[in-house]
Amino acid sequence: MLIIGELINTSRKAIKEAVANRDAAYIQDVARRQVEAGARYIDVNCGTQVHDEAEIMAWLAGTIREAVDAPLCIDSPSAEALRAGLELAGPGQPMINSITAEKERFAGVLPLVLKYKTKVVALCMDDGGMPNTAGDRIEIVKRLVRDLTDAGVPGDDIYLDPLVKPISVSDGAGAEVLDTLRFIRAEYPAVHATCGLSNVSYGLPNRKVLNQVFMVQTMAAGMDSYILDPLDKTMMGFLYASQALLGQDPFCGQYLAAYRDGIYNG
Amino acid sequence: MLIIGELINTSRKAIKEAVANRDAAYIQDVARRQVEAGARYIDVNCGTQVHDEAEIMAWLAGTIREAVDAPLCIDSPSAEALRAGLELAGPGQPMINSITAEKERFAGVLPLVLKYKTKVVALCMDDGGMPNTAGDRIEIVKRLVRDLTDAGVPGDDIYLDPLVKPISVSDGAGAEVLDTLRFIRAEYPAVHATCGLSNVSYGLPNRKVLNQVFMVQTMAAGMDSYILDPLDKTMMGFLYASQALLGQDPFCGQYLAAYRDGIYNG
Repeated sequence: MLIIGELINTSRKAIKEAVANRDAAYIQDVARRQVEAGARYIDVNCGTQVHDEAEIMAWLAGTIREAVDAPLCIDSPSAEALRAGLELAGPGQPMINSITAEKERFAGVLPLVLKYKTKVVALCMDDGGMPNTAGDRIEIVKRLVRDLTDAGVPGDDIYLDPLVKPISVSDGAGAEVLDTLRFIRAEYPAVHATCGLSNVSYGLPNRKVLNQVFMVQTMAAGMDSYILDPLDKTMMGFLYASQALLGQDPFCGQYLAAYRDGIYNG
Repeated sequence: MLIIGELINTSRKAIKEAVANRDAAYIQDVARRQVEAGARYIDVNCGTQVHDEAEIMAWLAGTIREAVDAPLCIDSPSAEALRAGLELAGPGQPMINSITAEKERFAGVLPLVLKYKTKVVALCMDDGGMPNTAGDRIEIVKRLVRDLTDAGVPGDDIYLDPLVKPISVSDGAGAEVLDTLRFIRAEYPAVHATCGLSNVSYGLPNRKVLNQVFMVQTMAAGMDSYILDPLDKTMMGFLYASQALLGQDPFCGQYLAAYRDGIYNG
């Protein structure tokens, strides 16, 4: 299970302010706490800073790497911002979030994946837009895996993101993702799958429970990475319980350790 | 989703006392509250009353049926106790919990399934004892479905119970059940699957979260019935959230109704 900590994102007010004030200590504290809570990668997203995204990405990447050893997941659709972050994302294998099957974006991001030998989130989206059915997603998955593999990216470095949409808009949206995951697990056992969880509950009440349940469902269908808030103890508690019940936690050791650490009392 | 309310069981202290005092009002209240909370069947188990199980079963069945229209799930390994309950379990199709692939028990219970045209929980256990692997379970599943179907029991009346064991004893116990469920869904789409949830967490701390997570996992793998406490609002909240995310709740209607009913604030 590979956890990507999602908190360093300028769409969050506290991060936006810290960036505006170049408050390195605050950013470093958020990075440190995410690593301590189990994040193996720190996502860095400053997409709201449209005019100076690359410059801020470089500042954030440098600032975070002074504080933690965990590698960074540089999160932007812009090749320029990705490059600025990747220059400072090592040592350790950095990650790109994300490439898509859109022709222009694929062509812009692929050279960075190869140059920096990154892991890469491959989002199920192409020039036809966002997919609706599992069938749509599976067609894009096939193209992404083929094109990335043909370019020399190892399967183990590919993290397919099925693109999670709200069930409030389409009540089959969750099931379509689960069907896509089952296809990925059956056809590409060496390739990973990741996603964010909050889109699925958009527009509905009591979103936390929906997000927790969707994590458990997608884990059962083969998801092995999440972009989430590792400081959310309830969510992490469900993750450890889910691992233990899936037989992925020898002697329930990680579950018991999480319990001893008080993660279920938070 | 077929919920079987589990609360009327003499292994629970309050029920044992109510039975000792022939406190019909208490038993009827527990039955009524389970139906109001979503139970479609009321399980009746007085297996702890070894000396007069059949007599108490008859008293419980008659008492409950005076109060609620929901049919009963008569829960005993004893053909005599089953018969005593089934005589009073209608109108409506009663349920038997359970038949197994043990030769003697199968021969004793099958005539009751046929005579009373019941639904039946078919527990994955045979004269070789309790199964360990998914492979063991699948062999028993095949025999149970074949023998019940050959005897004329419709697939729609069969509720296979994979037999849930504690992950504290064997850390693959949850995964074995999930694999068995996937086999059942693939091979016998017309047959149902049910289970109790609390065995899985036996011996571990924070059992509620494990039970909730195991419900979500088994639903995602095709479980469509549970023997549970429908008064547990958190558990029922997870059930409705899980249904909605699996695309089994048109326009998220049942989820939203549960929210309006305050089920997520309990």
